[in-house]
Amino acid sequence: MTLDISECKALLYTAVLSDVMDDLGLMNQAMKPFVRPLDDGLVMMGRARTGLYMPVYDIEAGDNPYDLEIDLLDDLKEGDVAVVACNGPTSRIAPWGELLSTAARCRGAEGCVTDGLIRDIRKIREMKFPVFHGGIGPLDSKGRARMMKMDVPVECAGVRVRPGDFVFGDADGVVVVPEERAEDVIARAKRKVTGENHTRDELLKGHLLREVYEKFGVL
Amino acid sequence: MTLDISECKALLYTAVLSDVMDDLGLMNQAMKPFVRPLDDGLVMMGRARTGLYMPVYDIEAGDNPYDLEIDLLDDLKEGDVAVVACNGPTSRIAPWGELLSTAARCRGAEGCVTDGLIRDIRKIREMKFPVFHGGIGPLDSKGRARMMKMDVPVECAGVRVRPGDFVFGDADGVVVVPEERAEDVIARAKRKVTGENHTRDELLKGHLLREVYEKFGVL
Amino acid sequence: MTLDISECKALLYTAVLSDVMDDLGLMNQAMKPFVRPLDDGLVMMGRARTGLYMPVYDIEAGDNPYDLEIDLLDDLKEGDVAVVACNGPTSRIAPWGELLSTAARCRGAEGCVTDGLIRDIRKIREMKFPVFHGGIGPLDSKGRARMMKMDVPVECAGVRVRPGDFVFGDADGVVVVPEERAEDVIARAKRKVTGENHTRDELLKGHLLREVYEKFGVL
Amino acid sequence: MTLDISECKALLYTAVLSDVMDDLGLMNQAMKPFVRPLDDGLVMMGRARTGLYMPVYDIEAGDNPYDLEIDLLDDLKEGDVAVVACNGPTSRIAPWGELLSTAARCRGAEGCVTDGLIRDIRKIREMKFPVFHGGIGPLDSKGRARMMKMDVPVECAGVRVRPGDFVFGDADGVVVVPEERAEDVIARAKRKVTGENHTRDELLKGHLLREVYEKFGVL
Amino acid sequence: MTLDISECKALLYTAVLSDVMDDLGLMNQAMKPFVRPLDDGLVMMGRARTGLYMPVYDIEAGDNPYDLEIDLLDDLKEGDVAVVACNGPTSRIAPWGELLSTAARCRGAEGCVTDGLIRDIRKIREMKFPVFHGGIGPLDSKGRARMMKMDVPVECAGVRVRPGDFVFGDADGVVVVPEERAEDVIARAKRKVTGENHTRDELLKGHLLREVYEKFGVL
Amino acid sequence: MTLDISECKALLYTAVLSDVMDDLGLMNQAMKPFVRPLDDGLVMMGRARTGLYMPVYDIEAGDNPYDLEIDLLDDLKEGDVAVVACNGPTSRIAPWGELLSTAARCRGAEGCVTDGLIRDIRKIREMKFPVFHGGIGPLDSKGRARMMKMDVPVECAGVRVRPGDFVFGDADGVVVVPEERAEDVIARAKRKVTGENHTRDELLKGHLLREVYEKFGVL
Repeated sequence: MTLDISECKALLYTAVLSDVMDDLGLMNQAMKPFVRPLDDGLVMMGRARTGLYMPVYDIEAGDNPYDLEIDLLDDLKEGDVAVVACNGPTSRIAPWGELLSTAARCRGAEGCVTDGLIRDIRKIREMKFPVFHGGIGPLDSKGRARMMKMDVPVECAGVRVRPGDFVFGDADGVVVVPEERAEDVIARAKRKVTGENHTRDELLKGHLLREVYEKFGVL
Repeated sequence: MTLDISECKALLYTAVLSDVMDDLGLMNQAMKPFVRPLDDGLVMMGRARTGLYMPVYDIEAGDNPYDLEIDLLDDLKEGDVAVVACNGPTSRIAPWGELLSTAARCRGAEGCVTDGLIRDIRKIREMKFPVFHGGIGPLDSKGRARMMKMDVPVECAGVRVRPGDFVFGDADGVVVVPEERAEDVIARAKRKVTGENHTRDELLKGHLLREVYEKFGVL
Repeated sequence: MTLDISECKALLYTAVLSDVMDDLGLMNQAMKPFVRPLDDGLVMMGRARTGLYMPVYDIEAGDNPYDLEIDLLDDLKEGDVAVVACNGPTSRIAPWGELLSTAARCRGAEGCVTDGLIRDIRKIREMKFPVFHGGIGPLDSKGRARMMKMDVPVECAGVRVRPGDFVFGDADGVVVVPEERAEDVIARAKRKVTGENHTRDELLKGHLLREVYEKFGVL
Repeated sequence: MTLDISECKALLYTAVLSDVMDDLGLMNQAMKPFVRPLDDGLVMMGRARTGLYMPVYDIEAGDNPYDLEIDLLDDLKEGDVAVVACNGPTSRIAPWGELLSTAARCRGAEGCVTDGLIRDIRKIREMKFPVFHGGIGPLDSKGRARMMKMDVPVECAGVRVRPGDFVFGDADGVVVVPEERAEDVIARAKRKVTGENHTRDELLKGHLLREVYEKFGVL
Repeated sequence: MTLDISECKALLYTAVLSDVMDDLGLMNQAMKPFVRPLDDGLVMMGRARTGLYMPVYDIEAGDNPYDLEIDLLDDLKEGDVAVVACNGPTSRIAPWGELLSTAARCRGAEGCVTDGLIRDIRKIREMKFPVFHGGIGPLDSKGRARMMKMDVPVECAGVRVRPGDFVFGDADGVVVVPEERAEDVIARAKRKVTGENHTRDELLKGHLLREVYEKFGVL
Repeated sequence: MTLDISECKALLYTAVLSDVMDDLGLMNQAMKPFVRPLDDGLVMMGRARTGLYMPVYDIEAGDNPYDLEIDLLDDLKEGDVAVVACNGPTSRIAPWGELLSTAARCRGAEGCVTDGLIRDIRKIREMKFPVFHGGIGPLDSKGRARMMKMDVPVECAGVRVRPGDFVFGDADGVVVVPEERAEDVIARAKRKVTGENHTRDELLKGHLLREVYEKFGVL
């Protein structure tokens, strides 16, 4: 399926996608609110590429602790979103920072979502690279956690994410649209945006909420 | 009782109101710090109009899940503050967003405080409508929670709020001034502001904190 | 030991200090991520001066509840950082605000770190005084908590801090460099900054992360 | 569908039911471990009758705060299990105690599960009435919470429970078997019990776990 | 005021005391449910003698870290209950164990309540000394926390306790009866016990809960 | 080093081992109090054999999810204690149950400690096999978590445990004695036990705590 990502980013927002998925019975697609955008002026949409971490308490001799992380980064494609699952919000590590943001952007990635922490936030902000994170802190993953799997189903901030699912993030948070439902969800979302615009216009004219809700059925 | 709301918003701040209520033995009037302003440049003061939510896990057929919410919004008066209690900080729903902000402002409301989440934050910020919230997220209340009572005593972020109490919010958080104590509290707060200004001036002249504290008794 | 504080603030950052201390086996020097800068454009470095609070539930007659707090503030020296430990993140008090910031700056202090709350945040931000805090709220410590010890070892946001240790804070959080390791840590950090700069440059030229990591060993 | 409840209670246990439901893709049927049996020597199985609470902060004049609770209790039938959902584990109320246990048993109910607290535990234990609870404490619900709905879908300790679903509890906790899957789940569970018995027997003969697992495929 | 402690322990229980205090508007007298009896067959009632701890991170040279603790223990009187407040449930220390239980019993104390941990539980159980605790663990307070005040108002497991208040504990938890209300509370509680006994008797005869509740008004 | 395990289990207890390690500056050797014995009448001591889990959200085709778990169990030796680390207390899985207890005992293991959940508790209790756990629940690890490493350093309930360290558990909890300090720690603990016995004897004779503490220096 091909979607016009730029059009979606311009027209849609997480709240309308969440409402539409609710109506379709997909009620657990919004990440928990501890995941926040680093820059809430940026909108992100792309396909999930997942990395799954485990906690470790040691560095094994002769080992490259970043091995799989590097594989994932170097394999990112145009339009991908890196989804870095490290069992937040209890995670204390920052698996993502400026250098990975730079590498990801050079491969064409759209952004990153992690339930762990991030670091180098001033430099990431300057890059205008969309990163949604579970907190901010300086601790590297080395000796604390390690990516063990890539491109497997993960859970990130309470939502199941499979490789290929669409991840959409804006100022209100992050929602995940299952790949096989994406076309339908996005078509419905576009229609609902129109209803919300009418509702707002009527409210601004001074109509009561009850009248407007009865007319458009949107809140 | 009538208070000059504009004057209060210009002169007072939550910290001084909190200190004055402490001195009067009202020690539990400050909302927990998980409630934050959406825009910390705005000051809000008004009378509480309360809505109380319960968690639900289903939508009943033929039912308008927003029914009481709409009643509360359409009944807001000039100078009211909507206090939306949904058992935060464990709440996962966003009962407040752009459309309710628009409706509330059209009725003359001063702002909104909720221990739940809010959504459409970029549009609310553009409106400069004061909203104090327990987090940000896209999930609608439909099928997850429902307003069951309006204009009853509630607890919001750890503070009891009764309809008619004064709610004051600024960059430091939110305090609730019981209606029957408001006149006294505000008169004392105005006097304390003067003491704090003297303290600051003396400190800026280089005086030691002990000297200044002994002189003004304010910290 | 004397360090060139201005040079450190210009060149270094918490992430690189944290990585270097990790390599030296000092793996618990980064404060938990609930401690955040009030203004993430400011960098702070200085020597720790500690204050330790206990919870109280009463005000004793004829007592000055701020007594030791005033002693600590009035004894701050050029280049000191006040480390105010009040058992965060469960603390509900704001032991630090505008007046203490003013007093501290007048004595030459570099900033403040607390695992408790702070208040008067708009005025502190205007002062450009670096404060790293465990939350924001209006509640004074009087009748709720009291500083009982100054210049003793404390734990703040999960890190042991002794008087004289170096405290470094920026947008990514706060790290503590033990006094006796500071010279070595800072020398190593300066060298690592160079490696990170090379890595970024190579990534920007389009090299894969694996190549660049194999060349510089920095991530 | 009719099940031989006595046979199920004698043969089955929560772990085997949970494993069988996992194999069928029903992976969220075990209540969170904060729900514990009051007497871990008792086994409970029956059909869910649900009650859903909301937090309140006041008692309305002329109102019977236990109204719906009494309706639910008086309507319990032979083989029912009362499922009392009050948003645990943050609930501070004890909606269930000795008098409700007595009333429920007199109607033929099999037991009670609540994510709230219970009270009068010594007398409930003497009755040998199975109660699974989210904690123990003396606080009544009056003025703190109120049952607002009966026989609706609820969430209890993280599991969705609909009226008519089978609730099974023993020393290891509580699982919920959806009504429409119950026949299949129970038939499979009986077969799995046999495999576990063989595994145990072989292990007791001293065989290695790998040999036994390869033979029976059960762990 | 003198109360017949033995009679109270034989007739009353925490649930009825809590209900009676609720009716009198004293709605925050029950400790949070994380405080549990070590032996739930024991009932405890006595007057509060309080000790208040602060966290410390060091042992000062030449200092007896148990100094005030010893003072409190040696000063306990017949009928006292030691209330040891150490900011539970986050406390990790065990300020109470077998030796303090032995010392307290030798002075005539009725028991101990702490929101911290306890240790030596097998030996305390053998002594049949009533201890209500916030958890069990082996860590001594030395170098981690220190009693700083005795016989001051404290907060223990969410309830304010002043020296002289009555503390009552049984299998359902712990309630605090303010000294000046004790006579009234206890008289009312005795009467309510009779109503609950009637209710139970009628239920056991098979009457519906609604009939019985309408007759006795007790649940 | 060889220790007389039976003698240690008869003479020592976690509290005295914890105190002795405190005196040696080993202040983080006691597991957090959420880890509790399944049967608090059993004492356990042995050498750690570790297993480290990661969360997973899927079962890979053709894969044995218990592979490494089986390796660890089959390799246990006389006197070993299985230390099963799965990032408790947030873990929702029960990696240990009756079958693993049976297998472990057949290999000569002394017991098991896990920060995860356990299941089949009635059968484990009947076996009198010492298990210390982070909770009780029926959920299997398959499809939720997987052992990824054995015999590596882990963190279990807040304490670092390396293969070969001594793990001691009793009614008060679990402490870990680093292998290289064990001889010294145990010798000191035996001496301290004597001091505590004298203290208890003197207290029972009615001496004040201060006198006894000044004489024996033990509390």
